[in-house]
Amino acid sequence: MENFNYFAPTKVVFGKGTEQQTGQLVKECGCRKVLIHYGSGSVKKSGLLDGICASLDQAEVDYVTLGGVVPNPRLSLVYEGIKLCRKESVDFILAVGGGSVIDSAKAIGYGVSNEGDVWDFYAKKRTPQGCLPLGVVLTIAAAGSEMSNSSVITKEEGWVKRGCNSDFVRPKFAVMNPELTMTLPAYQTESGCVDIMMHTMERYLNQAENMELTDGISECLIRTVMKNARILLENPRDYEARAEVMWAGSLSHNGLTGCGTDGGDWASHQLEHELGGMYDVAHGAGLAAVWGSWARYVMDARPERFARFAVQVMGVEDTGNAMETAEKGVQAMEGFYRSVQMPTSLRELGVEPTEEILRELARKCSFDGGRTIGCVKKLDQEDIFRIYQNAR
Amino acid sequence: MENFNYFAPTKVVFGKGTEQQTGQLVKECGCRKVLIHYGSGSVKKSGLLDGICASLDQAEVDYVTLGGVVPNPRLSLVYEGIKLCRKESVDFILAVGGGSVIDSAKAIGYGVSNEGDVWDFYAKKRTPQGCLPLGVVLTIAAAGSEMSNSSVITKEEGWVKRGCNSDFVRPKFAVMNPELTMTLPAYQTESGCVDIMMHTMERYLNQAENMELTDGISECLIRTVMKNARILLENPRDYEARAEVMWAGSLSHNGLTGCGTDGGDWASHQLEHELGGMYDVAHGAGLAAVWGSWARYVMDARPERFARFAVQVMGVEDTGNAMETAEKGVQAMEGFYRSVQMPTSLRELGVEPTEEILRELARKCSFDGGRTIGCVKKLDQEDIFRIYQNAR
Repeated sequence: MENFNYFAPTKVVFGKGTEQQTGQLVKECGCRKVLIHYGSGSVKKSGLLDGICASLDQAEVDYVTLGGVVPNPRLSLVYEGIKLCRKESVDFILAVGGGSVIDSAKAIGYGVSNEGDVWDFYAKKRTPQGCLPLGVVLTIAAAGSEMSNSSVITKEEGWVKRGCNSDFVRPKFAVMNPELTMTLPAYQTESGCVDIMMHTMERYLNQAENMELTDGISECLIRTVMKNARILLENPRDYEARAEVMWAGSLSHNGLTGCGTDGGDWASHQLEHELGGMYDVAHGAGLAAVWGSWARYVMDARPERFARFAVQVMGVEDTGNAMETAEKGVQAMEGFYRSVQMPTSLRELGVEPTEEILRELARKCSFDGGRTIGCVKKLDQEDIFRIYQNAR
Repeated sequence: MENFNYFAPTKVVFGKGTEQQTGQLVKECGCRKVLIHYGSGSVKKSGLLDGICASLDQAEVDYVTLGGVVPNPRLSLVYEGIKLCRKESVDFILAVGGGSVIDSAKAIGYGVSNEGDVWDFYAKKRTPQGCLPLGVVLTIAAAGSEMSNSSVITKEEGWVKRGCNSDFVRPKFAVMNPELTMTLPAYQTESGCVDIMMHTMERYLNQAENMELTDGISECLIRTVMKNARILLENPRDYEARAEVMWAGSLSHNGLTGCGTDGGDWASHQLEHELGGMYDVAHGAGLAAVWGSWARYVMDARPERFARFAVQVMGVEDTGNAMETAEKGVQAMEGFYRSVQMPTSLRELGVEPTEEILRELARKCSFDGGRTIGCVKKLDQEDIFRIYQNAR
């Protein structure tokens, strides 16, 4: 087992009706003025936003609002939020939405608490020294951003999608009512499930040894999400299934499933980031489209680990030949993706995979050849190109 | 799934050599003066205390020390600690030890931050309004107090052992080096393993439904501890086994295995508290001694749950008859306890089970008949007596 740090300080308030506690939770954080940050307006239509405003009013907490966050949240709105927070002396950000809204809120928080251009932190030119405190009312189970240290933002100039990780942005609280996710379209629900699974799979398929408890938790988490993803395709209003998926989403990305590992691989996420930046695809769908190709490209570097995944998670029979079992596991996962209407290729994702486009994606993903990605195998620009190519 | 709150803010710093980071971690908490609290002196003999003092010196953090904590930590030393902290203007307590030391530190923290007699909080006369911040260097994997909200103290007058729970006492950080636990005697190691298992079993054997992910994590955690408890009996210096048990100890009592449940049963803990208060037995051993008797007394109220436990955790074959399968599961667990040299009766624990003594235990455990314990079945004074009697 590798040495590790684990730090997940977010207070989770989980279950039916919990959004009514929002005002009180914000008040307990001791802030004076809140920015309520949200997305396309579905939280307005549903009445959720009104309810939260009423809860803040009742707790006598002042607030301003900023909507308009889109999937693959954009830098321009982050700049707008920073300006608004400074003008209004905001000292707490409440994200009402899914991962995009939370990530945008985190970026605004960085921007308010640090001098200079906030993009520097995403471009890895500087390291943030703090962040405004954040809270979350979660409406999409997927990104796990409600407990995570990560934030991913897309810069419109060049359509570059980049992440920034620090413990400063772990939310103070996360209000999680599974009922709020019941009206999501099936594609978004299933894409969310893939995102959740992948946060654990990225950590599980690694180069480390001996993490018995972490492995067991990870296997159980992935199986639970798969089972409930299937249920939600049939019955999107199944509360128990929504609840299992929502809680799995937080545990999958708060660090728990990485304890004692080497941190994980994360190449699939890097491969998807370029697709998300350039094509605005749903994150989980993008991950599903490249994962099989990535897995087959790297699994000979650790066939036993992929074989264990096949047996313990996918329920594949151990053939005695690790590479053979591993391949059956990848096939089974692709079969699962298809069964929940997720793409397993770039074409199915809606990306036209010309050589020119794939070369461009590989160039950007490798930072013009300046970095490798992944740990199961370290992948350079040419490897990345081939993985995209195999995912056509 | 029941609504739940989850809050486990402790920063875990886990692995070899991590105790060297103690000074820096204390410093990051922004305190001026530390009380280093410890037990019988084994941390002195081993050199651990000197190393921690050196680490504090290096971080330029001032400190005083107070040793002498015993298993089933006592109120008189808590009073002494409160006095010392006030005299020395201590604003942070560093517990170096296991659950007894941490629980004593928590009680001192309550006492310093609240007016009046600290025992009031344990006697449930008042609720604490705060606690000095705490940090932990863990040397025994058992109680899970390094991440938990609980503290259990024994009042010498009448030998009463009582607990007090609040989020104020969740430690700011926990330094966890499994190597520090390698020299523990086998009895203490195995007693710790039972304690860890029981923290999850108390939550798992409940009246709630539908906690798929929580159930899966719990089953995996108990199985992992059982496997490694056996390994440590053979090879106490197995780092990986020590590490699995240590991390399981934290996860078993930080709230994770209770998410979505009704909070759990906890009758076995109440039954043990009276034994611990009157006879100073090792907590885990005391739990092992009463658990089988408790399980048989209540399992007809939820045979399917006990049968699931038997199959998923103990690997018992499902007979198709829930009560029969449940009984086989209890037998298998008692078999496990014996295999790691833990008692399964009061006599084996060293308690002479006369009717007078058992009546006295039941009287105290039921607060003179003023409360019931447990949730699988609500147990009154007579039930409690019978369970002690069946555990002779």
